[in-house]
Amino acid sequence: MSGGKYCFELELGVRDYECDLQGVVNNAVYLNYLEHTRHEYLKSLGLDFAGLHQQGWDLVLTRCELDYRSPLRSGDRFVVRLRLERESRLRFAFLQEIYRLPDQRLVLQAKAIGTGLIQGRPALPPELQALLERGTV
Amino acid sequence: MSGGKYCFELELGVRDYECDLQGVVNNAVYLNYLEHTRHEYLKSLGLDFAGLHQQGWDLVLTRCELDYRSPLRSGDRFVVRLRLERESRLRFAFLQEIYRLPDQRLVLQAKAIGTGLIQGRPALPPELQALLERGTV
Amino acid sequence: MSGGKYCFELELGVRDYECDLQGVVNNAVYLNYLEHTRHEYLKSLGLDFAGLHQQGWDLVLTRCELDYRSPLRSGDRFVVRLRLERESRLRFAFLQEIYRLPDQRLVLQAKAIGTGLIQGRPALPPELQALLERGTV
Amino acid sequence: MSGGKYCFELELGVRDYECDLQGVVNNAVYLNYLEHTRHEYLKSLGLDFAGLHQQGWDLVLTRCELDYRSPLRSGDRFVVRLRLERESRLRFAFLQEIYRLPDQRLVLQAKAIGTGLIQGRPALPPELQALLERGTV
Repeated sequence: MSGGKYCFELELGVRDYECDLQGVVNNAVYLNYLEHTRHEYLKSLGLDFAGLHQQGWDLVLTRCELDYRSPLRSGDRFVVRLRLERESRLRFAFLQEIYRLPDQRLVLQAKAIGTGLIQGRPALPPELQALLERGTV
Repeated sequence: MSGGKYCFELELGVRDYECDLQGVVNNAVYLNYLEHTRHEYLKSLGLDFAGLHQQGWDLVLTRCELDYRSPLRSGDRFVVRLRLERESRLRFAFLQEIYRLPDQRLVLQAKAIGTGLIQGRPALPPELQALLERGTV
Repeated sequence: MSGGKYCFELELGVRDYECDLQGVVNNAVYLNYLEHTRHEYLKSLGLDFAGLHQQGWDLVLTRCELDYRSPLRSGDRFVVRLRLERESRLRFAFLQEIYRLPDQRLVLQAKAIGTGLIQGRPALPPELQALLERGTV
Repeated sequence: MSGGKYCFELELGVRDYECDLQGVVNNAVYLNYLEHTRHEYLKSLGLDFAGLHQQGWDLVLTRCELDYRSPLRSGDRFVVRLRLERESRLRFAFLQEIYRLPDQRLVLQAKAIGTGLIQGRPALPPELQALLERGTV
């Protein structure tokens, strides 16, 4: 997120069942943290992931890049920050970073690219389209 | 399952991400193993959990009892065995046991009681009803 | 928890990845909620699950009973309440209930019985022993 | 994996609890599939992830790129294929692909880059070092 600003953040704590036999949060669990933060962000804007699904719209990832910088462990608190950008006509990108609290050590950087699907065809829900056009998300 | 017979079994192996910071399979993961085995059993009888959901039928748990006898660890293989019984007019019960392989050490005993729901009301799908009436599942 | 009092509670929200293809929180995920609440409770008393493990003490479940009363769905908030009791000389029991917020509809009742292990032998860590003896947890 | 050859594959089936409210395998679960396949591959070469951890060696991911091509659903079977390459002096890369069976439709392409840690310092376990030097993995 070099030079950019995040527009949403969510503070969470590690749950012990998220740690694996190495005693650190398992690599797959970060995708859970990232997704949950994206959904909370969308909800804060009035866009509900489950509600969209019931209306026939599915938001799906097409690509995800994850850079693991330092591990989270049992007892750690952390913040997930994000910024939403337009990636292409039909794709959006979430730039997300996780920092451990309170020392703000960088834990993970990610870029999650996605699109919308309606009846199996790529298209963005109008509300998300509007968000991306405002360019201020 | 004292005195009883199981009617289905599924052999599986521990996946490392299923182990927690104690180095053993996390307590919640056994419910995943049990559910997966129930669904494979139903599928072997032509009953598809996801397909039922799409037809409006949901199979749901109402109660689950778990006795943890010994832990599973990274690298362990195991078998999940089950027997299906009628619990009451609208409830069925899966008696399930997990044994480590190859030494057949008992890992877990469980009783999972469930029912069916259609449009939010308890009822058993006709195929399951038929199964339970045959009494030989 | 009929007639009893809970001594700790934790408020949480459903995360969308915790819901399964039926659109409700998967049955195994409730064990995650229950475990996380127990660990937060122990931490509030100065007992750290991961720290105990590093000192050679493992707290493990020996039995769990779960009564599923009503489902949680995407977007739901809920509270997990608990009470700790002595079950036998070497066993403790957590009585736990989950209620949906804000309507306080009962979601799940559970009894999680556990013990401690040190070098593979059942024993309670002194701090937990003290807690149970005070009888006021 | 354009032009390359995989050197290991593992056939698996979707488990219903791995599907989310959209009815497809959740994006994070693919990391579980990928990790499990890597660990089975290492095990096939005599390298045990959990055993390495107990000897003080931790294999960790530093970066992961995932391209989601088509979803997996309840009932699907699939194969995870992989190839191991040296990425840099202290880094290895797993090139992994998931194909649905039996139609071999491409589901996911991934590159998982990792390193080893001993006492918190990057280093490759000698067995893995040897593997990478043989260059034929």
